[in-house]
Amino acid sequence: MPLPLIEQADATPDVRAVYDDIKETRSVPDVNNFWKAIAHHPATLARTWESLKEVMAPGALDPLVKEMIFVAVSVTNNCQYCIRSHEAAARRLGMTDAQFGELMAVVGMANETNRLAVGYQVDLDERLK
Amino acid sequence: MPLPLIEQADATPDVRAVYDDIKETRSVPDVNNFWKAIAHHPATLARTWESLKEVMAPGALDPLVKEMIFVAVSVTNNCQYCIRSHEAAARRLGMTDAQFGELMAVVGMANETNRLAVGYQVDLDERLK
Amino acid sequence: MPLPLIEQADATPDVRAVYDDIKETRSVPDVNNFWKAIAHHPATLARTWESLKEVMAPGALDPLVKEMIFVAVSVTNNCQYCIRSHEAAARRLGMTDAQFGELMAVVGMANETNRLAVGYQVDLDERLK
Amino acid sequence: MPLPLIEQADATPDVRAVYDDIKETRSVPDVNNFWKAIAHHPATLARTWESLKEVMAPGALDPLVKEMIFVAVSVTNNCQYCIRSHEAAARRLGMTDAQFGELMAVVGMANETNRLAVGYQVDLDERLK
Amino acid sequence: MPLPLIEQADATPDVRAVYDDIKETRSVPDVNNFWKAIAHHPATLARTWESLKEVMAPGALDPLVKEMIFVAVSVTNNCQYCIRSHEAAARRLGMTDAQFGELMAVVGMANETNRLAVGYQVDLDERLK
Amino acid sequence: MPLPLIEQADATPDVRAVYDDIKETRSVPDVNNFWKAIAHHPATLARTWESLKEVMAPGALDPLVKEMIFVAVSVTNNCQYCIRSHEAAARRLGMTDAQFGELMAVVGMANETNRLAVGYQVDLDERLK
Repeated sequence: MPLPLIEQADATPDVRAVYDDIKETRSVPDVNNFWKAIAHHPATLARTWESLKEVMAPGALDPLVKEMIFVAVSVTNNCQYCIRSHEAAARRLGMTDAQFGELMAVVGMANETNRLAVGYQVDLDERLK
Repeated sequence: MPLPLIEQADATPDVRAVYDDIKETRSVPDVNNFWKAIAHHPATLARTWESLKEVMAPGALDPLVKEMIFVAVSVTNNCQYCIRSHEAAARRLGMTDAQFGELMAVVGMANETNRLAVGYQVDLDERLK
Repeated sequence: MPLPLIEQADATPDVRAVYDDIKETRSVPDVNNFWKAIAHHPATLARTWESLKEVMAPGALDPLVKEMIFVAVSVTNNCQYCIRSHEAAARRLGMTDAQFGELMAVVGMANETNRLAVGYQVDLDERLK
Repeated sequence: MPLPLIEQADATPDVRAVYDDIKETRSVPDVNNFWKAIAHHPATLARTWESLKEVMAPGALDPLVKEMIFVAVSVTNNCQYCIRSHEAAARRLGMTDAQFGELMAVVGMANETNRLAVGYQVDLDERLK
Repeated sequence: MPLPLIEQADATPDVRAVYDDIKETRSVPDVNNFWKAIAHHPATLARTWESLKEVMAPGALDPLVKEMIFVAVSVTNNCQYCIRSHEAAARRLGMTDAQFGELMAVVGMANETNRLAVGYQVDLDERLK
Repeated sequence: MPLPLIEQADATPDVRAVYDDIKETRSVPDVNNFWKAIAHHPATLARTWESLKEVMAPGALDPLVKEMIFVAVSVTNNCQYCIRSHEAAARRLGMTDAQFGELMAVVGMANETNRLAVGYQVDLDERLK
């Protein structure tokens, strides 16, 4: 019952233009299912792609660091599609097994200590205010 | 009604030993309230500190990247204490305003696209399986 | 290892009475798997059905609006079963593809700006207090 | 801007009847702010109280165990009001500091290993299917 | 330690241009603290405002329905700032106390049944696939 | 694309030592996939096992109560693997169907009332401060 994916051949011109920009920007032969799903709402497709392109571009943070942060959020949100697609992107940018292992270790610990801070209802330190 | 903080002067020897190690490792004059709160369960204090020390040590990932991942998880979990204390740690390691801004931009976008992927119920691409 | 579904034929009289009420209220030939699963705890089955019937009834909000709110929460919680069953209910009440697209756009944006508000630790405006 | 609390003196008869039942059931002189807030929607007040009374009653699980589970969920959801009020309820039922400490340790570990299972995308073991 | 708010008088021209558009679009004398906080990253300010303006505009869904969906997500994410500001927006668009009460009832029930569906590990019905 | 599981025969000595300790401690013929997945980062494997062994040991709380708390957190986090494996552990320790049913009822109610408390923005009672 999920909406069927919209393939390039069946896409309207505005959708096809976004697909073409994704393929060119990323040098990939086809766009991921994510884009083919949200293409049902062309305004969301265009807006999301423009935003993502801007946010993930090199800047004050390295693109690999950005992809690892994306994975950290996706793991915390428990979104399988998001983990897989952004882990793949991080590996294309050079993430090693050891880096993935440390990434998971930090994500796990952060989730643990977050709950301890919440559960013990810790007040902000004066120097953190 | 949260448990009172356990200060160094009132701590048992095992708790004091952990406090001393935290202060020496981090070169700080006092430990954060977080540690003074979980010290009510000395086993949790000792285990959490040993784990955190190991996980956040330099390794395949840079310590600043680790702190930014910690912030990303804490923002996604909406834990104010955790955001403040780890943002402070990231700034001590050199995080600039521009880096913090990009970090937030990625965390925000990841949360947005996570929901779009979930809501459109996107199936995994063959190449991601 | 999930508990087997309890079909009408194998149900105790109290469970069967709830099934009958669901089928009559919704004019459906059979109840969803959700009800057949929680029927393992008949008190939860009866209480949940009575509550849901009351909460989702027409009132100050339109039933379609209620189902879309249910989908918004389910997407935010990443519950696949919940998204599918309430998206189906919303479509039966007339939700169009364009409405679903806008619903997802709002859910996505809300999750993004929620994280930005949390990450930047925004204080409440005076006029919001 | 949160809605003002509805005190007993200003309550309609149906709201007052619920307040009276809460006070009698719990042997307390006044109801918590939670009830005075949701009393703005009397149907939600009545339904929630009836459900909670039924769910938290002694049964196959001990009332103290139920309150500790309530705290575990509230910590995971990061709901300060919920943690405080149910921690207080658990303490009234006899929860010791040592039990609270172990409760937090389990909640913390569960949140950590949940993320590791998700991040490493662990498939179900054959014997768990 | 949260970043100080950037007031109109101290803003760079690109930030001021966004503030002016927000004030004109919403007919308000000043922008909310949210915008003054994310203005530290002008690209995020501009992108978020353009996206929000587009997403929340009247379309296939009524603006009030969109604001109530925003509140539903914010409650589920436990973001106080987000609840307050979007509840205020919904009230400006005409949300009554009775509608707010029903909104909360649906959000509460959705969160309850989401957990029951997850905890009982309910398989998708054939007709939902 | 998830990392392949590391079986005992292919494991390095340090990983094998942890596997052996898990099997002996739990009297099981093989370790769960969870351990075979995180074994890609041996430090995480060793640390997580040592922590889990310590946290889940009998103490001020009964081991069955601890496993039910673990299930409660895993349901709230929507982690299928975690629910299945810890539900299995709880059943091995004697959890009955009636206890599981009550556990789910409490988890469901806690998630509902958590959202009501958050949505109505309830202030802490004086006696809870």
